[in-house]
Amino acid sequence: MTVFTPSRPVRRAAYRPSVELVPEILAGNVAAIARMITRAEAGYAEAAPALAEIYRHTGKAHVVGITGVPGAGKSTLVSSLIRAFASEGRKIGVVAVDPSSPFSGGAILGDRVRMSEAASSSQAFVRSMATRGHLGGLARSTLQAVDVLDAAGYSPIIIETVGVGQDEVEVVTAAHSIVVLSAPGLGDDIQAIKAGILEIADIHAVSKADKAEAAATVSALRGMMTLGSERVRSKWAPPVLPVSAVSGERIGELKDSISRHWGHLRDSGELAERQRGICRTRILGAAKYLFQRKFDERAGEIGEHIQAVVNRDMDPAGAARLLLGWTDEGQAA
Amino acid sequence: MTVFTPSRPVRRAAYRPSVELVPEILAGNVAAIARMITRAEAGYAEAAPALAEIYRHTGKAHVVGITGVPGAGKSTLVSSLIRAFASEGRKIGVVAVDPSSPFSGGAILGDRVRMSEAASSSQAFVRSMATRGHLGGLARSTLQAVDVLDAAGYSPIIIETVGVGQDEVEVVTAAHSIVVLSAPGLGDDIQAIKAGILEIADIHAVSKADKAEAAATVSALRGMMTLGSERVRSKWAPPVLPVSAVSGERIGELKDSISRHWGHLRDSGELAERQRGICRTRILGAAKYLFQRKFDERAGEIGEHIQAVVNRDMDPAGAARLLLGWTDEGQAA
Repeated sequence: MTVFTPSRPVRRAAYRPSVELVPEILAGNVAAIARMITRAEAGYAEAAPALAEIYRHTGKAHVVGITGVPGAGKSTLVSSLIRAFASEGRKIGVVAVDPSSPFSGGAILGDRVRMSEAASSSQAFVRSMATRGHLGGLARSTLQAVDVLDAAGYSPIIIETVGVGQDEVEVVTAAHSIVVLSAPGLGDDIQAIKAGILEIADIHAVSKADKAEAAATVSALRGMMTLGSERVRSKWAPPVLPVSAVSGERIGELKDSISRHWGHLRDSGELAERQRGICRTRILGAAKYLFQRKFDERAGEIGEHIQAVVNRDMDPAGAARLLLGWTDEGQAA
Repeated sequence: MTVFTPSRPVRRAAYRPSVELVPEILAGNVAAIARMITRAEAGYAEAAPALAEIYRHTGKAHVVGITGVPGAGKSTLVSSLIRAFASEGRKIGVVAVDPSSPFSGGAILGDRVRMSEAASSSQAFVRSMATRGHLGGLARSTLQAVDVLDAAGYSPIIIETVGVGQDEVEVVTAAHSIVVLSAPGLGDDIQAIKAGILEIADIHAVSKADKAEAAATVSALRGMMTLGSERVRSKWAPPVLPVSAVSGERIGELKDSISRHWGHLRDSGELAERQRGICRTRILGAAKYLFQRKFDERAGEIGEHIQAVVNRDMDPAGAARLLLGWTDEGQAA
């Protein structure tokens, strides 16, 4: 397995233009793939045309989102899934979003270490994204990394995230199939946080199937399913699957369920609708990112607006309208 | 204590224009305050000029952010602080952000119930905000609620949030003084998530001071402080205070520390810098919100761009530039 950890963006003498990397990425060259993902993550303007070109070669991969609260066992599960898909001769991509802070840039390294030890396959490309927190670029660069792997012929591509925070929800809803992992025996407070993500699951997995409490969690989730949901569920009834990542028990069943959901999306025609939703979210995310970048670049000009807001001569929305060039639109905000 | 829970926005026959409520809010009328916060939360365009006017009357309150992971005991602590500040004859505002999902709109009601039971004072106004998740308006409406309470003469105003997610970090960094609550004995995974928010603390509180493990948590935090931080810490050394919200032990010390930090900000001149940072974040947040609203309103026009992105005729950033009216700026994104 090839594990590339994010490195600091350094412009070396031998820097090759990103557009030159595109043919190599399409041919599946892992060094070129890793390099392009690093540039996407760093937000290099130079990489933008190459990423736009790469995007045109995407749309073949099955993108699978795996989410769940910390401690549920996501990384162990992903490692098992890598092995299960690899045994079918498939090239698997994994993009893991580290639950780090917008301030520290830190990451829970233990998870990553567990994943790289457990998985061992020459067919898997695993990448951890450092968050770009304050820049609002986390969802953007994560999905660009998925694009690179998609264009390079990887499928499925797994996006692994902690199911808390809006950025992470944005990322996981860019997947075609969403697996929500629940763990028996976590605290109520923690479980409640994830109440929202339960609703977006196409497949429920319950970890630690060997533990006695797992059966109760499975029952509770199945009970919740029968209560229905405000979300129109299509003809797909989300299965609830106990798994034990440690013993590898029933991982094959989860893998088959993921593939079955992909088949369902294509056969039912629901895939088109889901893709429109994904693209809508991505356009909006890109627009916000571009706007924020422009905002950061115009620091001087913005300084006087900030001072006016500090002085209470103007309110934040008024200053925002000025910066957006919407001053002629009155107070409608 | 006056507890107003968010109600569904209903336009009644007796709907009074928001601008008419402003003088009543400035006079401290709690019904008018509650009504305006509901309108801010619902994002009524009609309320925007009133909120802009209210903003001009803000800047007097000491805004205190209290954050910490679920289970740390935030709500209990906030209840104790309400009593402690009320005993000084002050009018205390609390705006609590529910850790609910962008999908369900649900909330951990238990916490809210605990808070309203524990606090009992006619000088406190406590409000829970339902999240506006996907609309990106959570930070915006929360800070508008703080504005309303500020203009109405409340101080301190406590913003209580779970310390996960970018929206919530955005909210808490709009406070002048940030209290990060740590609990002894929570799982490592959970503690690690909060590694980032530890760095933004002006004051550390450690809950469950009566438990044996609390001393170890206090030591660990003090050790971390001596390691220094990348953030320039000014002359304020963040204290680490064990508290027991249940017994009320040492709550007075925390209250005094919060007041001392406010004094420090004003005496040292650091307040001006912090206010510029807060206003900058608020302008950017308002701009993103306004852009997203326009995006939502132009659904028809946007439909063909979405389809072009689905068809891979255009990449998301390209579509975003078109929508921003930046098509003449080349590929620089």
